[in-house]
Amino acid sequence: MAAPRRTAADLAERLLAGDKRALARAISLVEDDDPEGWALVQEVYPRTGRAKVVGFTGPPGVGKSTLMGALVRHARERERQVAVLSIDPSSPFTKGALLGDRIRLAEHFLDAGVFIRSMASRGSLGGLSEATLQAALLMDASGKDEVLLETVGVGQAEVDIIDHADTVVLVLQPGSGDSIQALKAGVMEIPDVIVVNKADHPLADTMIREIRGVLSLGPPMSWRVPIVRTEAALYKGIDELVERIDAHREHIEAEGTLAERRRRNLENEVMTLAAVRLRRKLEASTRDDAEVRELLDEVVARRVDPATAAARLLEREL
Amino acid sequence: MAAPRRTAADLAERLLAGDKRALARAISLVEDDDPEGWALVQEVYPRTGRAKVVGFTGPPGVGKSTLMGALVRHARERERQVAVLSIDPSSPFTKGALLGDRIRLAEHFLDAGVFIRSMASRGSLGGLSEATLQAALLMDASGKDEVLLETVGVGQAEVDIIDHADTVVLVLQPGSGDSIQALKAGVMEIPDVIVVNKADHPLADTMIREIRGVLSLGPPMSWRVPIVRTEAALYKGIDELVERIDAHREHIEAEGTLAERRRRNLENEVMTLAAVRLRRKLEASTRDDAEVRELLDEVVARRVDPATAAARLLEREL
Repeated sequence: MAAPRRTAADLAERLLAGDKRALARAISLVEDDDPEGWALVQEVYPRTGRAKVVGFTGPPGVGKSTLMGALVRHARERERQVAVLSIDPSSPFTKGALLGDRIRLAEHFLDAGVFIRSMASRGSLGGLSEATLQAALLMDASGKDEVLLETVGVGQAEVDIIDHADTVVLVLQPGSGDSIQALKAGVMEIPDVIVVNKADHPLADTMIREIRGVLSLGPPMSWRVPIVRTEAALYKGIDELVERIDAHREHIEAEGTLAERRRRNLENEVMTLAAVRLRRKLEASTRDDAEVRELLDEVVARRVDPATAAARLLEREL
Repeated sequence: MAAPRRTAADLAERLLAGDKRALARAISLVEDDDPEGWALVQEVYPRTGRAKVVGFTGPPGVGKSTLMGALVRHARERERQVAVLSIDPSSPFTKGALLGDRIRLAEHFLDAGVFIRSMASRGSLGGLSEATLQAALLMDASGKDEVLLETVGVGQAEVDIIDHADTVVLVLQPGSGDSIQALKAGVMEIPDVIVVNKADHPLADTMIREIRGVLSLGPPMSWRVPIVRTEAALYKGIDELVERIDAHREHIEAEGTLAERRRRNLENEVMTLAAVRLRRKLEASTRDDAEVRELLDEVVARRVDPATAAARLLEREL
């Protein structure tokens, strides 16, 4: 452990100084589940908690990446350091569907005050939600004023991934009927801010009325969810969106829910990381084990049920 | 363990004889994570593997429950025993949004050859996917020829829940733009059969063309995903849908992928159940523990990072 720790300290220093390449390297280490990555997060953790973390979710195709680009521009005009983490769940079925999206952020790649990174959702060992939090912590420690997390999807799973954010923004466009239905049926939780992008579309008003209708069904809450119209490609509505996001943050700070939210997230994180490690330990100790193979064959042959097999595995292990 | 086991044997006998109340009781036990429930699954497991299991997913509001009703009617006209398990992810935000859907199945409630059951997704201890499989096994053991699993949602998470099915059907309606985008971007895996319900809608043809476009992007596969038009409320297209589902099953049987699919699912199930038990054990041993509380406070105060805290928890436990 001595060698990686020393390297980590060195990398940590550069990361804390805001070095982009150090940050990129650090996130790769965490994503690859490298012990050096974990040592690094440990090192810089006391320097986290300062950045404003905003999470964006919504169906593919609504223009989220264009919106990220606009928000980066807005932040840079105010000389704020900003990081964008795109959680990209493309399956092997259609590779590169989101590659075009990344290009929309290209104008910012050379700006030292901007850090942009994609992370793939499949195959991440510790679970994508964990990798997301670790990456967000690293971005925070590297001195970013704002960390924007972006996930592509239309369900609760995607909202869960960005639940580490202080503010959760749902981005829709006219025609996002499935998402409205999901909100209405309670399949997806109500976000803190809703954006209707491509608001020049003739059906935008209908869409906003539908969203208002859904929101009116809910119980009265201390925070009234604003619906913001944007045309991200034309940089329209961006000022208002930022105002609303800031207002939400001020609201939860004043109310005390920001501290509560962060505590709950961190506690969950600890338990989840512990559970993931337990599962990995179990998987490592059963892989290529003839006895386990036999037990699984018994399950497939319908002689031993899955729960009994699980119990036997644990008796054997612990 | 002796007493619950005896009760389980008694309940098992009635369940295997096809008693509806015994089946309902058994599923409740599994859902409540009662040891009696697990003993029961153990008892009847050798009698499973016979039913055809079909999973349905799709956004809320597309008419899935009406479609389930039509499929139940179709099965009953052929004197086949059928069970429907609806996995209902309604959040506390809008209670009862799906209650109306259940009413559409009401005409079948008194039919002894039909079993209908809802299960809630939040709060299920062992994970909803596990409870779904256990319930499906119980339905299978009780002599149902067909088990229909239905989940409401628009993402990969919902597809994962019904991944225990032999055939996965995605139900859409004209206007399901978000779901098409999710398929296109590879955010959601391609199902085995796609249904376009409410196919009398003027935009149905456009919708079908869009789906064809998405499917044509994928790699050539041995199974060509059929798109079936239905008007479930008028019982239109149901014969064709059943034919396509049966054809898919014959295809995977002939190809050998049915056995493969079931093996993979059962093996995953064993590992997941073992992991869930490990996590619960961990949570039980740390709950209300002053030392753990202190450790979590250190994390919130940014003095100990989450991964280090997780490692300390495990050192303490194992």
